[in-house]
Amino acid sequence: MKRENLIKEVMNLLDKHDFAELKVWLIQLNPVDIAEILAEVPDETLLMLFRILPKDLAADTFSEMDGDEQEKLLNNFTDQEVRDVVYEMGLDDTVDMLEEMPANVVRRVLSKASPEDRKTINELLKYPEDSAGAVMTTELMRLKENMTVTEALDWIRTHGDDKEDIYTCYVTSKDQILMGVITVRELLLDKHNSVIGDIMERNTIEVRTNDDQEVAAKLFDRYNFTALPVVDMDNHLVGIITVDDAIDVMTEETTEDFQKLAATTPSEEPYLKTSVFSMAGHRIVWLIVLMVSDLISGGILQSFQDALTALPILISFIPMLTDTGGNAGSQASTLVIRGLALKEITVKDAFKVMWKEFRVAVICGAALSVLNFARMLIQFPGQMAVSIAVSVALFFTVIMAKAIGGLLPIAATKLKLDPALMASPLITTIVDSGSLLIYLNVAKALLHI
Amino acid sequence: MKRENLIKEVMNLLDKHDFAELKVWLIQLNPVDIAEILAEVPDETLLMLFRILPKDLAADTFSEMDGDEQEKLLNNFTDQEVRDVVYEMGLDDTVDMLEEMPANVVRRVLSKASPEDRKTINELLKYPEDSAGAVMTTELMRLKENMTVTEALDWIRTHGDDKEDIYTCYVTSKDQILMGVITVRELLLDKHNSVIGDIMERNTIEVRTNDDQEVAAKLFDRYNFTALPVVDMDNHLVGIITVDDAIDVMTEETTEDFQKLAATTPSEEPYLKTSVFSMAGHRIVWLIVLMVSDLISGGILQSFQDALTALPILISFIPMLTDTGGNAGSQASTLVIRGLALKEITVKDAFKVMWKEFRVAVICGAALSVLNFARMLIQFPGQMAVSIAVSVALFFTVIMAKAIGGLLPIAATKLKLDPALMASPLITTIVDSGSLLIYLNVAKALLHI
Repeated sequence: MKRENLIKEVMNLLDKHDFAELKVWLIQLNPVDIAEILAEVPDETLLMLFRILPKDLAADTFSEMDGDEQEKLLNNFTDQEVRDVVYEMGLDDTVDMLEEMPANVVRRVLSKASPEDRKTINELLKYPEDSAGAVMTTELMRLKENMTVTEALDWIRTHGDDKEDIYTCYVTSKDQILMGVITVRELLLDKHNSVIGDIMERNTIEVRTNDDQEVAAKLFDRYNFTALPVVDMDNHLVGIITVDDAIDVMTEETTEDFQKLAATTPSEEPYLKTSVFSMAGHRIVWLIVLMVSDLISGGILQSFQDALTALPILISFIPMLTDTGGNAGSQASTLVIRGLALKEITVKDAFKVMWKEFRVAVICGAALSVLNFARMLIQFPGQMAVSIAVSVALFFTVIMAKAIGGLLPIAATKLKLDPALMASPLITTIVDSGSLLIYLNVAKALLHI
Repeated sequence: MKRENLIKEVMNLLDKHDFAELKVWLIQLNPVDIAEILAEVPDETLLMLFRILPKDLAADTFSEMDGDEQEKLLNNFTDQEVRDVVYEMGLDDTVDMLEEMPANVVRRVLSKASPEDRKTINELLKYPEDSAGAVMTTELMRLKENMTVTEALDWIRTHGDDKEDIYTCYVTSKDQILMGVITVRELLLDKHNSVIGDIMERNTIEVRTNDDQEVAAKLFDRYNFTALPVVDMDNHLVGIITVDDAIDVMTEETTEDFQKLAATTPSEEPYLKTSVFSMAGHRIVWLIVLMVSDLISGGILQSFQDALTALPILISFIPMLTDTGGNAGSQASTLVIRGLALKEITVKDAFKVMWKEFRVAVICGAALSVLNFARMLIQFPGQMAVSIAVSVALFFTVIMAKAIGGLLPIAATKLKLDPALMASPLITTIVDSGSLLIYLNVAKALLHI
């Protein structure tokens, strides 16, 4: 049966409170879908529905739930249920969950875990947030160098059950130094009696526990891995990152980039779950910085006050000029920021970028300038000189804006700053002053005011 | 040896033109790294280096190269080399490559492919760009319902070599309808004599050939798949999408979102490879649309011309007010756009979003307003009334901006438009008019001008 129909059937039975029949349908769903359904039911139904599920599926579903629901369930679980869930969930998922829980829940969960798991969980909790160590799991598949393919597959068969990923297996020396990796694909396609040490890949690619999680995610994107080994400072293999966690990291990093582009400081909470005060806090710093920078534009306008009051029609073109400058500049800066992030552009391309932006700016600037001149001829037929001044200023504004927008993100990178700082809001503010200077000087010169 | 050292050694030998020794080191690298090195060498060395590589590695490296280098190689390949590369490369990679090649190269490649591959390639080339059909591969692992686990693993062993992914296997009916999926993990962990039909997952999750590639990528993110089946309108299994291709789609879609946020129409070419005319074309439409919208702000300023010339100091606060409004509005709109994309926010949350943005706006607006009042007291000690007017206008501008920024992306979604249209540039333009209206009306009322 198709997933959509299954879900419809389940929702239907939920409405009818037909829990006996419900079980038959619920267990056919993917844990992700079950978790989503459980998030919608009232608290008193939540525990009951959860207890309907077979143990394995219950644990998988639990690890897909939001912190809020997990906490509700943990508070009502028997000790045995806590033990089952922790046993079945991956250790990395357990750690992710505990990071969001209040201290009393953390204590209870830890006290129910096996001593060995407790030790590992405590170690994983110590890695810095957003480091490779914090996203890795220790439940990886180890093989021995002298195993044959057949022995290795048998070993996987008997030891694979609680491993997060079995498709990439790792060979370490006696003191746990990573020696090589081999995939199940290679095992299945090689001869039964080949020896692991002869066929494994010895030139491994790995990250260190303290590397940023983004470094790991970029390696997945680059090499099409499905798992990546994590080693400590002495090259001991301590864990693996799996591709599903790498995808989560990519999504998280993209969200962070969006937040920077919007001139807010990054936050990991989902929009609706962020408190109003925290949200205001993330936004206000940049609003203040940018408001203060706008004092420069204000100063420029003040110093040209006489010219503006002498020919007040000039005032009405200010928003058009500054906005077009801001837009032209952010187009350049956003595309360059993205190009830098994807490594399509590097610092040494600064000149190429400038030359490209200059030519694009000439085309865009000329087109906008001509269009604007035409509309001003119609709208203000007697004001030929003003129309020329505004159109000329528009042309140079676009060129200035694209040059600044193209160059500043690269300059930031060169200075080891985050190029995403040079997002639209800051570029707009910087370009504003430039636009006004160009506009008012061109007007003064051409109109003799 | 570590990857960085390997690469250093290879570059060193390249400089010395020691090609015999080079081979020893080059073949230890990952195809991705080899492709990157080959992109840097002069054309005459390219073919020579490529021919050093063993056949399998050569094909893998070839599929990782840029279109430019692929074209150079194809033009110099013998017929046998064309045949080898096409045979070893996945069919989806071949199709990706052909999409970028000139017609004569496409004809040559197709003429060297086996009749069966040629037929498949031609079919894949027909799917609309960015559809699931266009990113899928047909080289998938099929199993039969009545096989035992042992038989299935033997089957994979003998038939897996040319398959893009062997970890997820598919069971179809006689007429190719998708019946179920089973992973190699499940096969390895189940009993030898279990029958596939009894243990496979029958509630499959799949996409259709005409679905947008983004739909497929979202399913990977949601369900942590490593491969996803693609079916045609009649539920026949026609291909699979693998997780590495899904990651590429995610990266591509993120780039598209960035381009929309910057008010440029999406383009798939990397920044430095996009022609100046194409780049100007992608940017100019939005620049014109926004410039025309700025006529409204211009009109508002014109109608308040008398007030502004009566008290010219008011002019100098225009950029600060419109920019702060624009920034406050884009903060709200960008975060809401991202929340909508991640499904953290849905259309039915419109009221929650408004209420949250209103409270955030009160906090931010009040803080900015107080700060601004303080600095104006210092900067313009004699202008108490003007300071009050500007600060009051600032407060209401932030509230108006956040309300518009929060609501418009949701309204766009409700109207089945892309919420990313409501990115910073459009929001800034819309908010500009609002800021000016608030400012000039507040000033008129409080200052009696």
